[in-house]
Amino acid sequence: MLKIGIVGGTGYTGVELLRILSQHPEVNIEAITSRKEAGMDVAQLFPSLRGRIELKFSDPAEANLEKCDVVFFATPNGIAMKQVPSLLDAGVRIIDLAADFRIKDIAVWEKWYGMPHACPELVAEAVYGLPEINRDRIKTARLIANPGCYPTAVQLGFLPLVESGAADLDHLVADAKSGVSGAGRNAEIHTLFAEAADNFKAYGVSGHRHLPEIRQGLSQAAKHPVGLTFVPHLTPMIRGIHATLYVKLLKEVDLQALYENRYVNEPFVDVLPAGSHPETRSVRGSNLCRIAVHRPQGGDTAVILSVTDNLVKGAAGQAVQNMNLMFGLPETLAITHLPLFP
Amino acid sequence: MLKIGIVGGTGYTGVELLRILSQHPEVNIEAITSRKEAGMDVAQLFPSLRGRIELKFSDPAEANLEKCDVVFFATPNGIAMKQVPSLLDAGVRIIDLAADFRIKDIAVWEKWYGMPHACPELVAEAVYGLPEINRDRIKTARLIANPGCYPTAVQLGFLPLVESGAADLDHLVADAKSGVSGAGRNAEIHTLFAEAADNFKAYGVSGHRHLPEIRQGLSQAAKHPVGLTFVPHLTPMIRGIHATLYVKLLKEVDLQALYENRYVNEPFVDVLPAGSHPETRSVRGSNLCRIAVHRPQGGDTAVILSVTDNLVKGAAGQAVQNMNLMFGLPETLAITHLPLFP
Amino acid sequence: MLKIGIVGGTGYTGVELLRILSQHPEVNIEAITSRKEAGMDVAQLFPSLRGRIELKFSDPAEANLEKCDVVFFATPNGIAMKQVPSLLDAGVRIIDLAADFRIKDIAVWEKWYGMPHACPELVAEAVYGLPEINRDRIKTARLIANPGCYPTAVQLGFLPLVESGAADLDHLVADAKSGVSGAGRNAEIHTLFAEAADNFKAYGVSGHRHLPEIRQGLSQAAKHPVGLTFVPHLTPMIRGIHATLYVKLLKEVDLQALYENRYVNEPFVDVLPAGSHPETRSVRGSNLCRIAVHRPQGGDTAVILSVTDNLVKGAAGQAVQNMNLMFGLPETLAITHLPLFP
Amino acid sequence: MLKIGIVGGTGYTGVELLRILSQHPEVNIEAITSRKEAGMDVAQLFPSLRGRIELKFSDPAEANLEKCDVVFFATPNGIAMKQVPSLLDAGVRIIDLAADFRIKDIAVWEKWYGMPHACPELVAEAVYGLPEINRDRIKTARLIANPGCYPTAVQLGFLPLVESGAADLDHLVADAKSGVSGAGRNAEIHTLFAEAADNFKAYGVSGHRHLPEIRQGLSQAAKHPVGLTFVPHLTPMIRGIHATLYVKLLKEVDLQALYENRYVNEPFVDVLPAGSHPETRSVRGSNLCRIAVHRPQGGDTAVILSVTDNLVKGAAGQAVQNMNLMFGLPETLAITHLPLFP
Repeated sequence: MLKIGIVGGTGYTGVELLRILSQHPEVNIEAITSRKEAGMDVAQLFPSLRGRIELKFSDPAEANLEKCDVVFFATPNGIAMKQVPSLLDAGVRIIDLAADFRIKDIAVWEKWYGMPHACPELVAEAVYGLPEINRDRIKTARLIANPGCYPTAVQLGFLPLVESGAADLDHLVADAKSGVSGAGRNAEIHTLFAEAADNFKAYGVSGHRHLPEIRQGLSQAAKHPVGLTFVPHLTPMIRGIHATLYVKLLKEVDLQALYENRYVNEPFVDVLPAGSHPETRSVRGSNLCRIAVHRPQGGDTAVILSVTDNLVKGAAGQAVQNMNLMFGLPETLAITHLPLFP
Repeated sequence: MLKIGIVGGTGYTGVELLRILSQHPEVNIEAITSRKEAGMDVAQLFPSLRGRIELKFSDPAEANLEKCDVVFFATPNGIAMKQVPSLLDAGVRIIDLAADFRIKDIAVWEKWYGMPHACPELVAEAVYGLPEINRDRIKTARLIANPGCYPTAVQLGFLPLVESGAADLDHLVADAKSGVSGAGRNAEIHTLFAEAADNFKAYGVSGHRHLPEIRQGLSQAAKHPVGLTFVPHLTPMIRGIHATLYVKLLKEVDLQALYENRYVNEPFVDVLPAGSHPETRSVRGSNLCRIAVHRPQGGDTAVILSVTDNLVKGAAGQAVQNMNLMFGLPETLAITHLPLFP
Repeated sequence: MLKIGIVGGTGYTGVELLRILSQHPEVNIEAITSRKEAGMDVAQLFPSLRGRIELKFSDPAEANLEKCDVVFFATPNGIAMKQVPSLLDAGVRIIDLAADFRIKDIAVWEKWYGMPHACPELVAEAVYGLPEINRDRIKTARLIANPGCYPTAVQLGFLPLVESGAADLDHLVADAKSGVSGAGRNAEIHTLFAEAADNFKAYGVSGHRHLPEIRQGLSQAAKHPVGLTFVPHLTPMIRGIHATLYVKLLKEVDLQALYENRYVNEPFVDVLPAGSHPETRSVRGSNLCRIAVHRPQGGDTAVILSVTDNLVKGAAGQAVQNMNLMFGLPETLAITHLPLFP
Repeated sequence: MLKIGIVGGTGYTGVELLRILSQHPEVNIEAITSRKEAGMDVAQLFPSLRGRIELKFSDPAEANLEKCDVVFFATPNGIAMKQVPSLLDAGVRIIDLAADFRIKDIAVWEKWYGMPHACPELVAEAVYGLPEINRDRIKTARLIANPGCYPTAVQLGFLPLVESGAADLDHLVADAKSGVSGAGRNAEIHTLFAEAADNFKAYGVSGHRHLPEIRQGLSQAAKHPVGLTFVPHLTPMIRGIHATLYVKLLKEVDLQALYENRYVNEPFVDVLPAGSHPETRSVRGSNLCRIAVHRPQGGDTAVILSVTDNLVKGAAGQAVQNMNLMFGLPETLAITHLPLFP
């Protein structure tokens, strides 16, 4: 049994890790830390776990994380980079669900995240945990940078086309919509029910932190810098991301075949039949990404629709997928939950 | 492996049965019928099941249900009673999720459901499938009347008190609130999103079909006819029932101990600590009923709060719990999903 | 033109006062104060008001409120009682939307609100601003205690019965459901969209501050102390209160006639035809209270359904109704908005 | 007082016309027709109107519409075109909220709407009722084709840029999101609460009827055929449209000044300050269109955000704006409602 530690367990990615890992047959959760809630029963904060999780939140200083096989960081940005070096030295493998190790260019990271990086030397070693690109490298990695929620849905949607050579890489457009849980479990006015319900808005149009992450991933896949306009929106639902992607085509391509072939062996990417419109609820609570490709009116613009659950394939589920790969377990183990529908 | 048939698979209880049974290790789904959608892939109607359910809907006439070990009816009221007799003759055991076999008094049933009963002789044999009352009889039953969604949450909430002799049985009040999926997957105006969202209303105050069902169950438990005022409400959420129950106490009773003792061995009833307020989302997608007891201001009125997921413990999950009991499987097998939270 | 001041304009009752008063033909809003947002354009905080409100938030110390004819307090509890005495001395009339002057028994108030009262001598003078009870006294009042949201819906629902002598006054039950805006515009986790959406729960069952307010009002109306069980619930909608009231009848009474007669001259109370179920959306954005009366199964328990918009008849609309009465304006002036439907 | 007739009053645009017109000081509603609900009180179907609308639905055959000054058609597509000719002959002016007269090219209309046109000769005469383009022609029109909901938000967002000569007109992208009321008050499964809540999806990507309408309008404004990719989405809110528009810029342009100048005299178009993100709730229940312009990362792609209430500026409010213009009334009369917020 793998010994698991979770740092920062009081947010939505933390409770989702608990939901998944407490049903995983090959792990024991040794510790889940929270500075603020240390000593409280986890099931008191998250009553959905009553009767299934006996743990209390530990004080980070007393959690003995160095005895774990793997530690998940479900913390705000900037925390993991301070604690990861000593844990790696102790032989612990790391999956960081925050952004600390996602961006290879340290200057870019520091600009977008507004702080100096605490361990730039580890950024180069970190493997970006998108199995559909980096599966082999993930298996042997010590340190995984788990992708952001938008970047997962957007990159999986764009990948076959940017790899194909058929896309105008200078004018990619990603119009993305997220459920409100993407903003985290933080007391803020703009995500109150009375503010976010029955309402729709864009945000961060001038620049969102997931822009450089997506641009880095697509540029690597294309082997060429891409130009991307990325507009995130807040939609009144709890979970789910819907990315609508617009690509100008430079030459003829069989979109349906391109996508089906690219993902034929992927257990968590489902290419829908031609003409489909994936719904976010069709992946709610599951680790799936469902994709449909369109070419409206036979024109030169491809429209790709890509949906995920931001807390599963966009966070905790993908983290467990990475863990399974790192420890030689079946890749899909314990992340085959069916979507909750309706 | 048990051979399973499902009659009427295009509603919400049908797809919920599929979600649960397709992850159940001891069953094979042999057929799922729909007169209207015969020939269509199940996963086309319910994209949440893509890649996991290969079945097509069968025409009811060609489904060979008599070869099944057990057949679930997830049909409108009045269908099962016509087909059950011949299936029972063929040795098939039956779990009816509709109301055909719930009310023992045929005249009462015919009044509330507005039709003559097709097989009154089987009503006496049918076992009301609430394991917390009838576990032993369920194990040997041929025919299970699976309880309604409101009756499950309301009866589990009232049971310890009506059994205790401490309650004024003449003036029970059940103020119940249901998510909109309780109204079924039917094209009707009053359950449209634009009608039911951002809105709250009572309905059926003059009389709802679940009233005689609850009254029958509580009267049996109390060994005395009870007087019940039952007011259902529609609340803008997809799943969940919250029952708020008011009971005038006739003598001193330790409510917390009473409830904890009554349910100490029940795998799916969770009595919360004193002072708690259960949330419907704490059981979303799970087979649990969570209950909290209160005695406001130390007065003579007890307030019981009881929550369930109307599609799981209130329908499909409880049906599988009954199936597990009927076939000697572990009672909790394949219905231990953790709630989806948030 | 009346000169209006608003203290504490950054909450939901504040913005609702602005929506109503900015369309009122007989008033000028002289100042709206906010310590925190002083200097900011009101329309920047509330973009719904862009182009219609030119004001900036004023620092409370510089607002010259003593030059106003009437000042509304849309502040947290405990603020108005400190500022009201000097404003009254300056000849300003006051409408307090908070709870500072609602409870006549100072000891009760101090117990429920957890602080000493700053001006107990003014509590006796204050008029409880429910026009359906106190219309004449409101006209001449200097100081109005505007009722709470739950107390408005619950009292209007109970009033005819408690006045009638036909009710068992010892066992009144009020099961009330509120939209999330009732919790105010405060950054708190439990009212986040991802916490409150697709969820239903009771809260404050052991005791809610509106309990003594309702009990006081009903006891005065009944001329006898009443026994009340009051259970508030949070429902996933923005606006609206639905109160479901249970009353044991002690003698025969024509409920429909009783209610219609009691409210025949009330411009904002609408008694629905027998058999109706009022919806909260039928009053959304309006100053109406709609009520329906039932006597299920002809038994001895009356069920009263009462709906309001918690921010209008439950707060800002009723405050303007009181202002109209105080200044001899037509009672319905500027509060005749039709509900927004759907 | 203008004599008003409404044909087809049982849908959402019908009830919204009633909400607006019943508060309009210069009109009398003479008749509102419904074949299905003839004889029923309007306020029984729409309880929000109780006490304010005394009308009953009339049978269309008996409504004497030819005595009206103006008749609104709030009917499904294909109805108005059959009745309009005789009403025009009787001297009645017409505002059609459906699509019958919106597309000038009859062949295009017949292809997208799947039926032959009943009075093609009137299509040329009809004036497209977008006052921001056609104000003068509307004033004298006999027959108004009231724009669709998406076309209003999308055209107002694109207009300044397509008129400017600075846009790449071949690759316009409109990613539009609508609340569920846009689908109308029709009993259909896909718009049930349990289907549409907590869910997000695109639809009609291969081609939506509003595509040719938008393309016609933009091509006229640009004096050049435009290439447009239009992707509508369904978002779980009742009212509101959010259009996110992507335009490749061909030359330098001061976007903020361009938009402010274009709309400086428009009473219902509000250009927000640079850097803004309009929310749909900031126009909920109002006739406003709010627009913000962005140029992310200083690149060559402009992003325009445009929000409206689909039932007001996208339907009934705009229809009344047209009526005001046609009859020489102040353009804003009775459509100055402030948005309901929150």
